[in-house]
Amino acid sequence: MKVLEALFSPGKIALVGAAHTEEKLGGVILKNLLRYGPENIYPVNPKYKELMGVRCYPTPGDIPVPTDLVIIIRPADEVPKILREFAGKAKCAVIASAGFSEAGRVPLQEETGRTGREAGIRLLGPNCMGVYAPQKKLDTFFLPPERLARPRAGNLGVTTQSGAVLAAIFETLAESNTGISKAAHYGNAVDIDESDLYEYFARDGQTEVVISYIESVRDGRRFIEKARALAQEKPLIILKAGKGASGARAAYSHTGRLAGSYEVFSSILKQFGLKEAGDFEELMDLAKAHSYQVPKPGRGKSVLILTNGGGAGVLAADECLLQGLQVKPLPAEKMESLKALFPPFYGVGNPFDFTAQATDADYAAAFNELKDDYDGFLIIALSAVIGITEGIGKMLGSFREAGKPLLLLTGRDRLGKRIARIVESAGIPAYPTAERAVRALAALLK
Amino acid sequence: MKVLEALFSPGKIALVGAAHTEEKLGGVILKNLLRYGPENIYPVNPKYKELMGVRCYPTPGDIPVPTDLVIIIRPADEVPKILREFAGKAKCAVIASAGFSEAGRVPLQEETGRTGREAGIRLLGPNCMGVYAPQKKLDTFFLPPERLARPRAGNLGVTTQSGAVLAAIFETLAESNTGISKAAHYGNAVDIDESDLYEYFARDGQTEVVISYIESVRDGRRFIEKARALAQEKPLIILKAGKGASGARAAYSHTGRLAGSYEVFSSILKQFGLKEAGDFEELMDLAKAHSYQVPKPGRGKSVLILTNGGGAGVLAADECLLQGLQVKPLPAEKMESLKALFPPFYGVGNPFDFTAQATDADYAAAFNELKDDYDGFLIIALSAVIGITEGIGKMLGSFREAGKPLLLLTGRDRLGKRIARIVESAGIPAYPTAERAVRALAALLK
Repeated sequence: MKVLEALFSPGKIALVGAAHTEEKLGGVILKNLLRYGPENIYPVNPKYKELMGVRCYPTPGDIPVPTDLVIIIRPADEVPKILREFAGKAKCAVIASAGFSEAGRVPLQEETGRTGREAGIRLLGPNCMGVYAPQKKLDTFFLPPERLARPRAGNLGVTTQSGAVLAAIFETLAESNTGISKAAHYGNAVDIDESDLYEYFARDGQTEVVISYIESVRDGRRFIEKARALAQEKPLIILKAGKGASGARAAYSHTGRLAGSYEVFSSILKQFGLKEAGDFEELMDLAKAHSYQVPKPGRGKSVLILTNGGGAGVLAADECLLQGLQVKPLPAEKMESLKALFPPFYGVGNPFDFTAQATDADYAAAFNELKDDYDGFLIIALSAVIGITEGIGKMLGSFREAGKPLLLLTGRDRLGKRIARIVESAGIPAYPTAERAVRALAALLK
Repeated sequence: MKVLEALFSPGKIALVGAAHTEEKLGGVILKNLLRYGPENIYPVNPKYKELMGVRCYPTPGDIPVPTDLVIIIRPADEVPKILREFAGKAKCAVIASAGFSEAGRVPLQEETGRTGREAGIRLLGPNCMGVYAPQKKLDTFFLPPERLARPRAGNLGVTTQSGAVLAAIFETLAESNTGISKAAHYGNAVDIDESDLYEYFARDGQTEVVISYIESVRDGRRFIEKARALAQEKPLIILKAGKGASGARAAYSHTGRLAGSYEVFSSILKQFGLKEAGDFEELMDLAKAHSYQVPKPGRGKSVLILTNGGGAGVLAADECLLQGLQVKPLPAEKMESLKALFPPFYGVGNPFDFTAQATDADYAAAFNELKDDYDGFLIIALSAVIGITEGIGKMLGSFREAGKPLLLLTGRDRLGKRIARIVESAGIPAYPTAERAVRALAALLK
């Protein structure tokens, strides 16, 4: 999908509708674009000779070089004309403007799509925020970072039809310390849609996991083909809206595409082995697990739970069973030697209960004895317990060498958050509840 | 349940096993107890004349006054003897010590229970943290506030069999700005159990909502009787562990009580109309909703969604349908006047989509027109959008006057968190995802 290189890794970029102030969307976009290198940015606005320190051009025709990418933030009615002016001079356009089929103006949207095809320009949008590619500091969004946190660079590819969901994804990833390779918000999808993006992500070396929020699909056959091809290369997790009739109606007015029957869609995903998240939170939890766990795929179903909280161990074991995982008893031949390692009141079993007397070292002692006997591990180290210190973070980080899926549940207090941060920088994801941790572990082991 | 007054609102309190330093559990408990008023605390430790500025007594027999409550943090073997020494001199005891049936020592636990009955002392525990009643600053926990956040005073009663779950509940409530009336962790439950606590909470004027984490129940008939009686007075939400066989095995070793069949338990709850949470997060989400929404019970099923994010509105509408709520169209006779109030590109419908052009005032304009037409309201005010300011917090707070269930979904960025804080101090709960908000709203409307 070479043309999408122009979208995610453009040479020169034009911005039609650039403004002088961040109080206007065209000013926010310009400021965000400038991080990509001022020498690559060509603002268009007849009222200015210069904007934010960069030369400004009166019309597209005045730009002296070919551009890979055009960002358009002008009233909807002007968009077809602007596209014609870039014919032969641009490969891709992000149409940030709203006021197309989502506002009932279907003919205008159709004209825009037709004009793009005639001009040889691939279109993202309209009614979209465009792309974010942090490794190269490419950012076409019309929201400033103070309004919308940008996640760090990482391995997660993001495609979303909805800007609100994009915002929620970004905030959640930033909060949960998960990094993005490339993100695209495609809005009304008059041209480029999830299928094109799947094709691109399948071959993109920076992207190791993909999440996709979909409200509607135009070409179901192509969608399935591209989704399967991508899922064969790397994990793809889909959240599909329109689970009920009201949802479908809302999806229609929102992006102007018909949502189709959710049940049909969902059963097709299942049939082709594609992963679907049940809700937004699950989408984010699974994205985090897969993003951290690359490149080790999980095998098998047996889980060891090491815990310093009896009740948390119980809830985790429960959820393992509900998820089809096995909380297999400890190997009989190791029971005596394990018991000798710990005080008599520890619960030597699975869950392995260190009780509230737990110390950091207990986790290493048990893990080292048992790391070969299980397929996946849940570490519950509640930071409320006195014997748990910040030092457990680094120690747990070393467990990753075992090369098996491993997740952490810790407290939400300050110490717990510090431990989570340390463990996550070592590549082990932390979760806030036992059930959510187990569901993420199950996704890795399936 | 007068005797439990001695537990939650005691006169004088003895602490057997008091220590001079917070490096010992007996020192942590003493320091926490002293906030209840040093004049009410009688530490027992033969090695000291004074501890933390309070006179210390060599033996229980030396305490010059009758005590309502005794906290015991001495080795398990000593507990029956200590109870005998308080015969006729105490009404209630919190046995914080571990090492009873959870460690395989069933006879010692039975002896402890028998001794309590003979001495006329009701027992909480063993293997428990005891009680927390913030209005009176009563706190018997052996964890310092730096390790375990204490939620503010409020209307939520908490009962839990597990200390780890207690810690998770406290951290979550503190984070989500939800207040506690009284909390009890009863551990092995040799005497006082959830049924006794339900009976107490049913009559407790400070408690308006109750949550209960249960691993096992000793007397099923009594449990149902007390749970139903409580649920007739105020919302009771139960989280039951042991959903699978492994979970049940873990619950047994953890508190020494057999967990029983989850399926039977769950179907009995349903039969008697008792509310069960599916997982820990749902327990906390519903607790928050009910705690904020007191004393207005919801009626009906129709929900209006006001949103500035199309995708968030779609996900919310989806979840409404899944939860059996109705995303009813706007009243036909109001369509014209509503359309006249807003720009032409707003989605005047349900969800009511103000788009990314939304301003704070749009919410008030739509809500005031429609507040009488719906039973419940979900306000989605994503803070990433430029037109949303901190001022929306106070404005949304005024919506509460409508007296109907009303929840907020906002962003997770700094502005979103500030807005949530303002709205919550006005009595409207905020949630982090559309689906979780709708599930909480559904619980209020059922």
